[in-house]
Amino acid sequence: MNIPISENPRVVIVGGGFAGISLAKHLLKEKLQVVLLDRNNYHTFQPLLYQVSTSGLEPDSIAYPLRKITRHSKDGYFRLAEVQQIVPEENLIKTSIGDLSYDYLVLATGSKTNFFGNESIEEHGMWMKTIPQALNIRSLILENLEQAVITEDPVKRKALLNFVVAGAGPTGVELCGAIAEVRNHIVPRDFRDLDTNEIQIHLIEGLDRVLPPMSEKASEKAYKFLKELGVEIHLNTMVQEYNGETVTTNKEGLNFKTATFIWAAGVAGAPVEGLNASAVVDKADRYEVNVFNQVTGYENIFAIGDIALMRNEKYPKGHPMVAQPAIQQGRNLAKNIKRLLKKEELVPFEYNDKGTMATVGRNKAVVDLGKMRFGGFFAWFLWMFIHLYFLVGFRNRIVTFFNWIYNYVNYDKASRLIIRPFKSNKKNLEVDQKKV
Amino acid sequence: MNIPISENPRVVIVGGGFAGISLAKHLLKEKLQVVLLDRNNYHTFQPLLYQVSTSGLEPDSIAYPLRKITRHSKDGYFRLAEVQQIVPEENLIKTSIGDLSYDYLVLATGSKTNFFGNESIEEHGMWMKTIPQALNIRSLILENLEQAVITEDPVKRKALLNFVVAGAGPTGVELCGAIAEVRNHIVPRDFRDLDTNEIQIHLIEGLDRVLPPMSEKASEKAYKFLKELGVEIHLNTMVQEYNGETVTTNKEGLNFKTATFIWAAGVAGAPVEGLNASAVVDKADRYEVNVFNQVTGYENIFAIGDIALMRNEKYPKGHPMVAQPAIQQGRNLAKNIKRLLKKEELVPFEYNDKGTMATVGRNKAVVDLGKMRFGGFFAWFLWMFIHLYFLVGFRNRIVTFFNWIYNYVNYDKASRLIIRPFKSNKKNLEVDQKKV
Repeated sequence: MNIPISENPRVVIVGGGFAGISLAKHLLKEKLQVVLLDRNNYHTFQPLLYQVSTSGLEPDSIAYPLRKITRHSKDGYFRLAEVQQIVPEENLIKTSIGDLSYDYLVLATGSKTNFFGNESIEEHGMWMKTIPQALNIRSLILENLEQAVITEDPVKRKALLNFVVAGAGPTGVELCGAIAEVRNHIVPRDFRDLDTNEIQIHLIEGLDRVLPPMSEKASEKAYKFLKELGVEIHLNTMVQEYNGETVTTNKEGLNFKTATFIWAAGVAGAPVEGLNASAVVDKADRYEVNVFNQVTGYENIFAIGDIALMRNEKYPKGHPMVAQPAIQQGRNLAKNIKRLLKKEELVPFEYNDKGTMATVGRNKAVVDLGKMRFGGFFAWFLWMFIHLYFLVGFRNRIVTFFNWIYNYVNYDKASRLIIRPFKSNKKNLEVDQKKV
Repeated sequence: MNIPISENPRVVIVGGGFAGISLAKHLLKEKLQVVLLDRNNYHTFQPLLYQVSTSGLEPDSIAYPLRKITRHSKDGYFRLAEVQQIVPEENLIKTSIGDLSYDYLVLATGSKTNFFGNESIEEHGMWMKTIPQALNIRSLILENLEQAVITEDPVKRKALLNFVVAGAGPTGVELCGAIAEVRNHIVPRDFRDLDTNEIQIHLIEGLDRVLPPMSEKASEKAYKFLKELGVEIHLNTMVQEYNGETVTTNKEGLNFKTATFIWAAGVAGAPVEGLNASAVVDKADRYEVNVFNQVTGYENIFAIGDIALMRNEKYPKGHPMVAQPAIQQGRNLAKNIKRLLKKEELVPFEYNDKGTMATVGRNKAVVDLGKMRFGGFFAWFLWMFIHLYFLVGFRNRIVTFFNWIYNYVNYDKASRLIIRPFKSNKKNLEVDQKKV
């Protein structure tokens, strides 16, 4: 793949998510050749994908060109490539654009949607891990509204106006809140020929509260906020099937006819072929790593972020699959790679939990910050501030900030454009939806 | 299509381009039912499409939701629909979502790319009349750069780095200028593993000067600007074929191996079936209209904008197919429809030529303004101001303005994201590229 031979040792980083770019940034000034690979030429700021799905932000403002990261190193390279196999005995990876040898290999491939083997959901549902998928959801929501306007059959219209989301983690909660805002603020003005009351938003959760990873206080507040926005919540309920028309649950009689079913109820690691079976563990398909993020059984292969499963007393199931552990592991591994070069002792990773937050709607967010738990306007303000801070790129921050002010003042979401129709083009877009 | 019967006469406007929305806006407060139809749910600001193609702007900031226009009228409706046929004897149109009767029908369907029957170009070339097409060009340019980095065969690499544009009207000139800026400012930083000198940009024009619709002074200046940016210009040259690998011209020996051929050398009207053959005239497939924009042979069917051919002494071939005549015809027709209601005499349309402008790059634009002809920084500044002024939507203006400042200060174009790959997905995207 045309990477020049360097006198510096070569670090190959697979994946430009939070973990990958955090590592890359901290290595760029070292005596190292850094090769960053990703199947996209941009970093995706996943925490704001739901705002792309619901017309609040344009995709370009939550994406950042990866070449802008590697260009700050004299010996840094980016390649648009998909990694197909690791050959650890040869210190080599096979990719869609050829083979590449490495001195250190860092797997930061992140996670993908987990359907737990439910094929009906994978075939008919929507999910949201990438920008094209978020844009497909945006198109589908808007197309369903347009279709409902011209549908006289009340049963069909109801299905078009029913939005069902499975999984009340942050993604599901934030998505439902944003769809509710579309219903409450946009539809009454833009779609005066629709009866707003016909639009229903259902959130289905298998456990007994929303936002299960957060504190009970946060769950209660988020529940209250969602209710205020008019979201119908079904706790202790499991989705069994979605055949493209009806969502069936494990509760008798609780089924939903819907044209829009979004699955936000599970993630799994996205491992690459080639490592020992013992390295890939647990149901969620993550790589088992030690405290230095070394993959079990390998000296020079590391895993960081969502794909890494580092078990310890405090986190017996590994760290939460969110941005903070990924960023911190990237930073720590950078430190350790520098130490490896100097033959110094490695520093174990320790997760500094900076808290968890989720937003439901305007002035409505919940925050768990150490022992502090609060919700409402201040939490919402803090949520915005933190997200702007971590968003990559000065331009993205300004554009996002401006959009938020605009949306707040005008009760508007301006990006409600069906740029690539999803339905009429579904067959063609399936590649997108499935692959990425 | 579920439009309520109103006591007001119904005006059906087909197309939400400059002409359609200019008319709609001026009719919304009248005692009229206004139905606006478009195959997209947004208005496209076509003069800035080339900046979407070249990563300078995000698509969402040059598009505007059409429902935001009709919502200001109590009796205003938008429908996402494609018009298939007009049945003038029944005052009816047939559309993809059903039939609709009208009292007044206004055709504002704009123009499409004209290949003058050259199938090889239609099959293998790119063009740019819509946002998905502009995004396809953006993806293709970026994919070719990525591909060139890993291509060792010098002949193949040259083809990937050759950008060939046919047609030196404003679109072709602006596109070449913007691609040159990508080469001059972005590639040296982002693609340090590419030799910038290998990137060539060729502009092919059949006539003897660039920007043929403008003054000779503007042509000379634009020519000089393009040369300064390193664009190679081939005047008096006609493209004969593009087989997907090589562009063949009418000049012996002047052929270009290229992976990117953009056709910007012709537009034609986009008429709808159903009117008398005598109404659709001239090579460019436009509707012949009288001074009131009435289509020849019909009392209550009007055509405005690119699709309308209004011939007079000053414009024997009709008005230029650009925004200004469209906007002005929309405004004049609104006045005339109001007069029709009051049974007053109609006012003939008179085109107030506000001048022509084109931009080549930073600080490089040309303006013909009445008898004034100038170029350079002030022209460029005026170009920006005018485009911001006519861009639809407050949010779009602010985001575009900020992006321009950012691009100017940083010599950067931040939206260089391959969100939907064009090449790897070409088969799937062909629908997009062809249909819209």
